Amino acid sequence: MKRIIFAIAFTAFSSMGLFAQKVKSLPQPDMNMKVSITEAMQKRRSYRDYQTKPVTDQQISNLLWAACGINNPERGLLTIPTATNAQDIKAYLCTAKGVSLYDPKANTLTEVTDKDIRPILCERQSAMAVAPAFILLVSDLSKFRGNAEHYGAMDAGYASQNICLMCAALGLKTVPRAMMNYDEVKKALSLPENIALELNHPIGY
Amino acid sequence: MKRIIFAIAFTAFSSMGLFAQKVKSLPQPDMNMKVSITEAMQKRRSYRDYQTKPVTDQQISNLLWAACGINNPERGLLTIPTATNAQDIKAYLCTAKGVSLYDPKANTLTEVTDKDIRPILCERQSAMAVAPAFILLVSDLSKFRGNAEHYGAMDAGYASQNICLMCAALGLKTVPRAMMNYDEVKKALSLPENIALELNHPIGY
Repeated sequence: MKRIIFAIAFTAFSSMGLFAQKVKSLPQPDMNMKVSITEAMQKRRSYRDYQTKPVTDQQISNLLWAACGINNPERGLLTIPTATNAQDIKAYLCTAKGVSLYDPKANTLTEVTDKDIRPILCERQSAMAVAPAFILLVSDLSKFRGNAEHYGAMDAGYASQNICLMCAALGLKTVPRAMMNYDEVKKALSLPENIALELNHPIGY
Repeated sequence: MKRIIFAIAFTAFSSMGLFAQKVKSLPQPDMNMKVSITEAMQKRRSYRDYQTKPVTDQQISNLLWAACGINNPERGLLTIPTATNAQDIKAYLCTAKGVSLYDPKANTLTEVTDKDIRPILCERQSAMAVAPAFILLVSDLSKFRGNAEHYGAMDAGYASQNICLMCAALGLKTVPRAMMNYDEVKKALSLPENIALELNHPIGY
């Protein structure tokens, strides 16, 4: 039932029309990591060189949960604050197999396209496109009454910092990037006008 | 020597003219906290009710280090990424005794004013002004060539998330607030046009 509701909501969100969508369940995020908060902040660093070595679904689950996951299921509250509690941030996982949207409530990934958009995320920094996964952060600006562009950027910063820290804790590399081919990415994901592309994070070794 | 250089830089930054400034050393941030990264993200929450109970210099040191401190002294890199590595974020500590600017390199606080600005940070949410300390995040927009307002907001989000997580790890309450009396705060701190007030965080129990 949850999946059906989500699929309908997702279809409305992505304006992709009606067709069956691939939904993949993620493992539960691992809440027993031993890395301390200070160690993660100490190790936080931006990296620009990546290997093709794959990352695991468990690592992806932890990273997406950190980015905009739910840490209080009863009240539907998130790991990050958002301006006016708009919960405007959505995260996409982008790999060689395509792009899928993270659903924090269901802890699933729903395929949006089977296109590999890593090259259009990387643009001129094409050497980075070998990273096995990218997390793309977008803000749904329609959730704000005013100052939407400002708050969307700020909220992306919150999610992005958590990705940076979780990567540091998992022994993975990342770097937040504002550079991407905005027109091509929006087209590939069929994103409407009100969804702002904020940042993308290569994830890898 | 470091302090002298900082005092000169600070004077230029704050446009406060030439007079002796009170500089206070902070304890080194405690790097041996036991709280894990997942526990801090799990406990991250926004609180709007505060007691007058004071916080310690050690807690403040950890919080300011998390916000925009240095985690790689050799290369001068920070606990947070900033757009184009502009390092635009500055943090002020605001208490009943006044306001002071955090210097990440020297790990010191330099007094800017002896005025208690907590009421003008709180505005209509005046009950929060009892919190013993506020951290005010500003962005030096002159460090960007373009998109300054967007990047300043984003970078404040990074710093603010680290404050949220460090508060959770220290057992302290906080909430990021964009609301404040912008004109009065800028006047009280003698901030020039290019310094944007981004967020303030009450810190307490």
